[in-house]
Amino acid sequence: MGDPAGIGPEICLRALTEPAVRKLCVPVLFGDAGVLKRVAGRKFNANAVCVVSLSEFSKIKTVTEPLVVDCVAIDATKIKPGKVSAACGRAGYVYIEQAIRAALTGKIAGVVTAPIHKESLNLSGVKFPGHTEIFTALTKTKRSCMMLYSDKLTVSMVTTHIGYHEVPQKLSVERVLHVIELTAQTMKQILGRAPRLGVCGLNPHAGEHGLFGRREEEKFVAPAVKRAQRKGLRVEGPLVPDAVFTTGQRCKYDAIVTLYHDQGHIPFKMLAFDTGVNITLGLPIIRTSVDHGTAFDIAWQGTADSTSLYSAISVAANLAARKNLTAENARNTKRNSQ
Amino acid sequence: MGDPAGIGPEICLRALTEPAVRKLCVPVLFGDAGVLKRVAGRKFNANAVCVVSLSEFSKIKTVTEPLVVDCVAIDATKIKPGKVSAACGRAGYVYIEQAIRAALTGKIAGVVTAPIHKESLNLSGVKFPGHTEIFTALTKTKRSCMMLYSDKLTVSMVTTHIGYHEVPQKLSVERVLHVIELTAQTMKQILGRAPRLGVCGLNPHAGEHGLFGRREEEKFVAPAVKRAQRKGLRVEGPLVPDAVFTTGQRCKYDAIVTLYHDQGHIPFKMLAFDTGVNITLGLPIIRTSVDHGTAFDIAWQGTADSTSLYSAISVAANLAARKNLTAENARNTKRNSQ
Repeated sequence: MGDPAGIGPEICLRALTEPAVRKLCVPVLFGDAGVLKRVAGRKFNANAVCVVSLSEFSKIKTVTEPLVVDCVAIDATKIKPGKVSAACGRAGYVYIEQAIRAALTGKIAGVVTAPIHKESLNLSGVKFPGHTEIFTALTKTKRSCMMLYSDKLTVSMVTTHIGYHEVPQKLSVERVLHVIELTAQTMKQILGRAPRLGVCGLNPHAGEHGLFGRREEEKFVAPAVKRAQRKGLRVEGPLVPDAVFTTGQRCKYDAIVTLYHDQGHIPFKMLAFDTGVNITLGLPIIRTSVDHGTAFDIAWQGTADSTSLYSAISVAANLAARKNLTAENARNTKRNSQ
Repeated sequence: MGDPAGIGPEICLRALTEPAVRKLCVPVLFGDAGVLKRVAGRKFNANAVCVVSLSEFSKIKTVTEPLVVDCVAIDATKIKPGKVSAACGRAGYVYIEQAIRAALTGKIAGVVTAPIHKESLNLSGVKFPGHTEIFTALTKTKRSCMMLYSDKLTVSMVTTHIGYHEVPQKLSVERVLHVIELTAQTMKQILGRAPRLGVCGLNPHAGEHGLFGRREEEKFVAPAVKRAQRKGLRVEGPLVPDAVFTTGQRCKYDAIVTLYHDQGHIPFKMLAFDTGVNITLGLPIIRTSVDHGTAFDIAWQGTADSTSLYSAISVAANLAARKNLTAENARNTKRNSQ
């Protein structure tokens, strides 16, 4: 449900009863029923949604209808919409924790997150910079990466929330290769075919053969691309960063692997602002997210746009279906060969 | 005229007789008449263009008609269109040298450059990475900067052709302030009013108050912005790099000051590929350039697009007119106060 003081509650509530969402999945909302009631006011139709407690949810074997799992993490009457607060930060974290637990046990097929507020989270004493880091830690994943997905452009990132100066020292052939492989794997699930990938260089003009930079392109990118190609992946690079995102170039790739936060985020936000989907790759569970913030300025007014949330649900449902398909195929193959 | 083996000769020749160009200025082309004749073939109308030698040009006091200044820098019969060569690199450099000399003596009002080829230039023994560096050196300018101008987005750069890792150590309050001032000055000349400027941060989310990076935003950007504001400039920053280039944000600024090559080049090329104008700020002369390369693959076929060259000529002519106006005003003010 995201931060209770943001636009998370209202967009999640809408998703819960949206027919387009129901066609894709059975939505289960981890949040607070009290908050949802306050946000929805008279419009909250208790009959349309089934509210269960955490302990009731733990007893359900298979989810068959839309649910609100009431985590009772905050007193709804004390929330000030659009305000930073430790209590809201803490509540947002509890919803994530419970959803991850449900996904790890296989009770839900994946987690879609609404926005949390970094300052509120920090005030509550939770020392993760964001969702990606929480998911990585709570699922005990060693190496994950962020991917931003849209129908106009998809980018994944070798490094994300670190300072500009730290990027070169975080690069390695293994890390670049890992992100190429994670990107290829997820894009294959989304597209249902082998994707075409590009990998950016680090320096202006991708270094111009050592003219600019410390040959990071030759040291880290080129060898990783070669190894990925040898593994059968369709991947090119190092590519010139200011050329690959132009209209004529970007259409050649299903996804572009970038080396640092803004190399991927600047072009992505220009093309798919507020409509993209953030996917964490490398986790043992499916996790997608909206690509916008808590929008405190319009919270609880019922005017927030659900487009990005619907996209995030759609991508998660698509990935879950492919995962099931793959698992099914694997079982069939095994059975047939026995 | 740019590199003789590229698309420079054909687009310059077209500009020389283009009525739209003639309305803006009296074009003077520094190049080789032999090359132009070979490129144009039968279409070269010797009567339409006046060809003068360098020594003849030196005797002309005021240019009143379109001219080709024949630098005789290369044997046209030996040129292979679309091929890298030291001879072409050298010839391209001679044209620039002569044009800069003419501009410094006031015989021409500014210089517009066609594309040169970095490898040819390098082969010829000229050790500058590009135009900007040649102009800075030959005009004995201490500090210049690059600006990319278009009607969709304008960006200037605090650092340009250096490695990724060198950027943080090149930042200083003075340098950022200098680029803000140069940008403000040129945008005022172009727009005829005080421009609104934005300045990017360096780190993801502009550092989030020290969460990412080494507080480069607080150390270098914020103090430079404050000093510029105290000087009366309309400038904001540090701005979040992946937010400021989105449709909703970038329209708030007439130009955005960026801290490194790709921070400015990625969004600019996405919005104004091959149609933008490259302006060198801080020189004692006006210098604009096309925003594309030599396009060796289509050179000498007469199919090259002149749009960027016309834009570059238009901006240079506009700047020259404003410069004259300002000089005129200054003289009048002085006269009136005497």
